[in-house]
Amino acid sequence: MPDKILRGRVLRFLSEPQGIEDRASYAYDEDGAILIRDGLVAASGAAADIIAQAPDAPVTDHRPHLMMPGFIDAHIHMPQAQVIASWGAQLLDWLNTYTFPAESKFSDPAHAARIAGAFLDELLRHGTTTAVAYCSSHPASVDAYFEAAEARGLRMIGGKVMMDRNCPDGVRDTAQSSYDDSKALIAKWHGKGRALYAITPRFAITSTPEQMAMAQALVVEHPDLHMQTHLSENRDEIDFTLSLYPKARDYLDVYETYGLLGPKSLFGHAIHLSDRETAAMAATGSVAVFCPTSNLFLGSGLYDKIGLRETGVRRAVATDVGGGTSYSMLRTLDEGYKVLALRGQKLDPLTAFWWVTRGNAEALGLADTIGTLAPGTEADIVVLDARATPAMALRAETIETLAEELFLLETLGDDRAIAATYVAGERWQPGGA
Amino acid sequence: MPDKILRGRVLRFLSEPQGIEDRASYAYDEDGAILIRDGLVAASGAAADIIAQAPDAPVTDHRPHLMMPGFIDAHIHMPQAQVIASWGAQLLDWLNTYTFPAESKFSDPAHAARIAGAFLDELLRHGTTTAVAYCSSHPASVDAYFEAAEARGLRMIGGKVMMDRNCPDGVRDTAQSSYDDSKALIAKWHGKGRALYAITPRFAITSTPEQMAMAQALVVEHPDLHMQTHLSENRDEIDFTLSLYPKARDYLDVYETYGLLGPKSLFGHAIHLSDRETAAMAATGSVAVFCPTSNLFLGSGLYDKIGLRETGVRRAVATDVGGGTSYSMLRTLDEGYKVLALRGQKLDPLTAFWWVTRGNAEALGLADTIGTLAPGTEADIVVLDARATPAMALRAETIETLAEELFLLETLGDDRAIAATYVAGERWQPGGA
Repeated sequence: MPDKILRGRVLRFLSEPQGIEDRASYAYDEDGAILIRDGLVAASGAAADIIAQAPDAPVTDHRPHLMMPGFIDAHIHMPQAQVIASWGAQLLDWLNTYTFPAESKFSDPAHAARIAGAFLDELLRHGTTTAVAYCSSHPASVDAYFEAAEARGLRMIGGKVMMDRNCPDGVRDTAQSSYDDSKALIAKWHGKGRALYAITPRFAITSTPEQMAMAQALVVEHPDLHMQTHLSENRDEIDFTLSLYPKARDYLDVYETYGLLGPKSLFGHAIHLSDRETAAMAATGSVAVFCPTSNLFLGSGLYDKIGLRETGVRRAVATDVGGGTSYSMLRTLDEGYKVLALRGQKLDPLTAFWWVTRGNAEALGLADTIGTLAPGTEADIVVLDARATPAMALRAETIETLAEELFLLETLGDDRAIAATYVAGERWQPGGA
Repeated sequence: MPDKILRGRVLRFLSEPQGIEDRASYAYDEDGAILIRDGLVAASGAAADIIAQAPDAPVTDHRPHLMMPGFIDAHIHMPQAQVIASWGAQLLDWLNTYTFPAESKFSDPAHAARIAGAFLDELLRHGTTTAVAYCSSHPASVDAYFEAAEARGLRMIGGKVMMDRNCPDGVRDTAQSSYDDSKALIAKWHGKGRALYAITPRFAITSTPEQMAMAQALVVEHPDLHMQTHLSENRDEIDFTLSLYPKARDYLDVYETYGLLGPKSLFGHAIHLSDRETAAMAATGSVAVFCPTSNLFLGSGLYDKIGLRETGVRRAVATDVGGGTSYSMLRTLDEGYKVLALRGQKLDPLTAFWWVTRGNAEALGLADTIGTLAPGTEADIVVLDARATPAMALRAETIETLAEELFLLETLGDDRAIAATYVAGERWQPGGA
């Protein structure tokens, strides 16, 4: 592939911002450019310097828009694209009434393929270039997911949900089949192109101890893989879990017992944690994944960010579609700001945009690959327009700083603020895959 | 004006729904139409019947979209269109740091006129056809607001903010000038065309007892006018208020002392109410106005709907731009659902859409004029498209009931879901006024 250059304002984070004045946490080129070579970032910086490095490369001019690494969504459910906006239930009822019936349809490869493609197009329309997804319990759903990702050139993480109890026939596997299917899918997909497999026991309620042991075996056999599950989203969920695992000291202890904690382990929600659980997550480098639109929509509770930060727990942020109500990491940041505001905390916009780019890449252990625009990383890029709607343009008239622009983008922005999305250096077009 | 007919699915509420199964609370015509004559609804019902009543009237076909009364926003700040998305402050700091400086610009009639026009266009783009707005303290802002409303044919309510202390020079009036200016503006605007004036002491903190007495005088002299103010939004606000009015039993008692309670009185927020305050509001027919995007954004607190319903307090719902983060009543309902979900409460979609149409009309005492599509009422109409975005269309594939469609609209919808807005029977076009 020939070299190419994208020109515009370029923002990339170097470290987690320590507040809204932390100029050292990011690099920002007002007249910047990104040089793309073979799907990777070859260089980024001042436009004059970049153009001098490749004077013959064609330049796509995105000025005055703002370019940054594509967004990363650390927790989402592919088979729930038609579950969003289901009314009136908290977690456990919501799963039984809406989610499990919808997921049962993914035994059909044609349905799985159609939804997986639409799902990834929605992510791209919203500027997300990497996501960590739960597929359904059917291997066909994982094939559909990674095939659709491959067709779009995406670095996607995901896996087959393991669930062998407390769910209906159409989505229930067995301890053995979940192990066998996961093994086959790992062999088929992990490391193929940009695909990364995640071992995915749904949560303790839907796994027998026998299945948890199988998940442990998978983690032991594949220590390089991510492991994802759910933790302490809802009070009834916690009570039910503890009734199923009466010897556990607490919810996290169920996973701990089966060796599922560690730096590649992603725990969705992690809202209602005890001090012991928090300390155990911090000690093992486990990741808590904050899902604000979902936590509000399902009435699950408020996330204690300061508590987690103080105790050193690694943190990611995610949409959690379909419990979450938007594919947009901008909308997710807006809700995250609000959830934290109710606790008297301020999520500053630098930290917010660090979080959905480099922060989530670090939480996934992938900051050497995505999320930074550093030379040699993959050229997944989002182009943002802070004047995308009349309401945004009216507000933008009085904006003077980068931080104000970022806060406008997260507070009023949605998919219309995504002027372009690039995947491994190629511009995504709706319907193009 | 010649008769005209709008055809599509037509929904109008007859009473407050008593839950998601309350079929008696609304009328719904799957193949419906609305006959418009002289800016009023002449009839609505089955399309065949309506067309038979006016066989020569031109028909605008909005099928398969859903028509209902235009949305009503019961609390919004016109001069804050450029304050939305201001970062990191709770109420009192937010006023001093962002809001008062922005409002000071409205002493300039040209600025006021430009923003008032843009503001009303945003409301219309989002399907809102009536709003109750705070203007700035400058009479020029009220002139600009009602002139822009008149140019668009809108029924708008609003008034000059009265504020004679605890605010900077550029926005501060005096007790006497606030009375004189309000009197002049009432004489100039109230009842002119569709304009309705609202007596508008900002809140107790920014009014001296002398100014509160002037507000009381205005209410006594104009008992037909609305009175709007703020109440118990934030703990610091409550403490500051009680320090300024040490004889008051509680925050509401300040307003009660000056005779400001009653069925035309609109109290924004009303989050942190004591039992006494709640009972006093119920006894006087005063209206509590729920502003969920604002309450979350400013970290003010959660609204206790059940408490208010049980005690019989009349309730309205509103955006509160610019403390609120969206002009959209759809986004507002989504946030309202979430705020209530955190309390374990379920706002059902029938009640939600009743609330933003007939419910708010009833709260304003205007249900004989707007919000119902009943014959003789004003033909303010919104046309909704539940498939307006790819994410909505994907979700809509599995929707079977009207309630599911409404919930999809409020959960995923924004201004793109507003297929058309009619004001007094005329279709609004961006930039048309």
